[in-house]
Amino acid sequence: MFDLIAFDADDTLWHSETLYTVTQDKFVHLLSAYRETDGIEAELYQTEMRNLRYYGYGIKSFTLSMIETAIQLTDGRIRGEEIRQILAFAREMLKAPVELLEGAEEVVRALSESHPLMIVTKGDLFDQESKLARSGLADYFTHVEVVTAKTSATYQALLSKYHITPGRFLMVGNSLKSDILPVLAVGGQAVYIPYHITWVHEAVAQPADDVMGYFELEHIRLLPALVESLSNAKN
Amino acid sequence: MFDLIAFDADDTLWHSETLYTVTQDKFVHLLSAYRETDGIEAELYQTEMRNLRYYGYGIKSFTLSMIETAIQLTDGRIRGEEIRQILAFAREMLKAPVELLEGAEEVVRALSESHPLMIVTKGDLFDQESKLARSGLADYFTHVEVVTAKTSATYQALLSKYHITPGRFLMVGNSLKSDILPVLAVGGQAVYIPYHITWVHEAVAQPADDVMGYFELEHIRLLPALVESLSNAKN
Repeated sequence: MFDLIAFDADDTLWHSETLYTVTQDKFVHLLSAYRETDGIEAELYQTEMRNLRYYGYGIKSFTLSMIETAIQLTDGRIRGEEIRQILAFAREMLKAPVELLEGAEEVVRALSESHPLMIVTKGDLFDQESKLARSGLADYFTHVEVVTAKTSATYQALLSKYHITPGRFLMVGNSLKSDILPVLAVGGQAVYIPYHITWVHEAVAQPADDVMGYFELEHIRLLPALVESLSNAKN
Repeated sequence: MFDLIAFDADDTLWHSETLYTVTQDKFVHLLSAYRETDGIEAELYQTEMRNLRYYGYGIKSFTLSMIETAIQLTDGRIRGEEIRQILAFAREMLKAPVELLEGAEEVVRALSESHPLMIVTKGDLFDQESKLARSGLADYFTHVEVVTAKTSATYQALLSKYHITPGRFLMVGNSLKSDILPVLAVGGQAVYIPYHITWVHEAVAQPADDVMGYFELEHIRLLPALVESLSNAKN
């Protein structure tokens, strides 16, 4: 048995990246009045990366980077009314209903009956807490951790904090870079469930199939059976 | 003895509100090219309050509200170059050196030798963690909690999480609304150390002097003596 099963949230339990790509499309469309659309996305991504060490992740950071990129790519000609539209995009993202991935609720409910569950999510504290509250899933989780980065040191600190032996910790998520590799590095086990879109910042090479403690599933619905088989194998 | 002594951070351990007021002055000056300066601060405050439920606290939220207010108060005439200046204000705030309040470091160091210490701070996770890292104080604190609001329920949850009896918990801070009243409400003790500026959103009436567990100090340097006298009184 695992002493703790942890889940990433964005694109593991509920849709998130789609919200960013939809907004990015609107942003490109907005700027198309000023210039060709080629290169707008790349410029926005560069701005985001440059700002990451000041802003961190999340919708507010993304919005500030959109505004900066809009000013830059229009040589300051962007009008107040258009910046207002970018602020409206942000508000739409922040108010968007939380759409659970298909099967997420029943899987989380089922596993919560046999294991303590935790959410480990990166990003903006306010926004993540708001989404968890609106998701209807909050009651299934014993612990919620919003962190600024998901490195091996982050997971090591969480395991110490909750007195969990690495080998009895399972992390489930859609990002190899944030949810899988750093967990394997500290001796935990990890289940990779890819989402149909991966933010380029999170894209890294996959571990080999035979890496200890690494599993890949096509769908979250398959998780309870995997947890059960791993538990049986160990008992 | 207390089982846990918790500190607010902004304007309790390091200067923060001054950074906001300096920036606000620059913002008013920026808009003075478009309109009379009277009422600009009030309008910004109203925008911040309206956005609080979407953005939460912190510099990024403040910046998005400045941009929105600038567009509104200029009827959209604000220029890209000026919005760029507002973004530069934000970056200056985020990069500003962390200036400790006089005496904060030696008090925290001294108390950390006899008590587990915790930081309980409201606001943006990324910015608060960055400030704590830059403050040089991180090693004195056993626990750090960045929360989205400081209500009685927040403190109740923290006390449960760390298995602390309310009567053996002491909170130290500069906001009656966030650091003192909700702690007294759950049966904890609280030390109010006023800062020379209070954000109007945090301003509330002071408890009477004879309220159980409530103390007021003029300076953080007086804290160790108070903690010692309270500990002696109880033993």
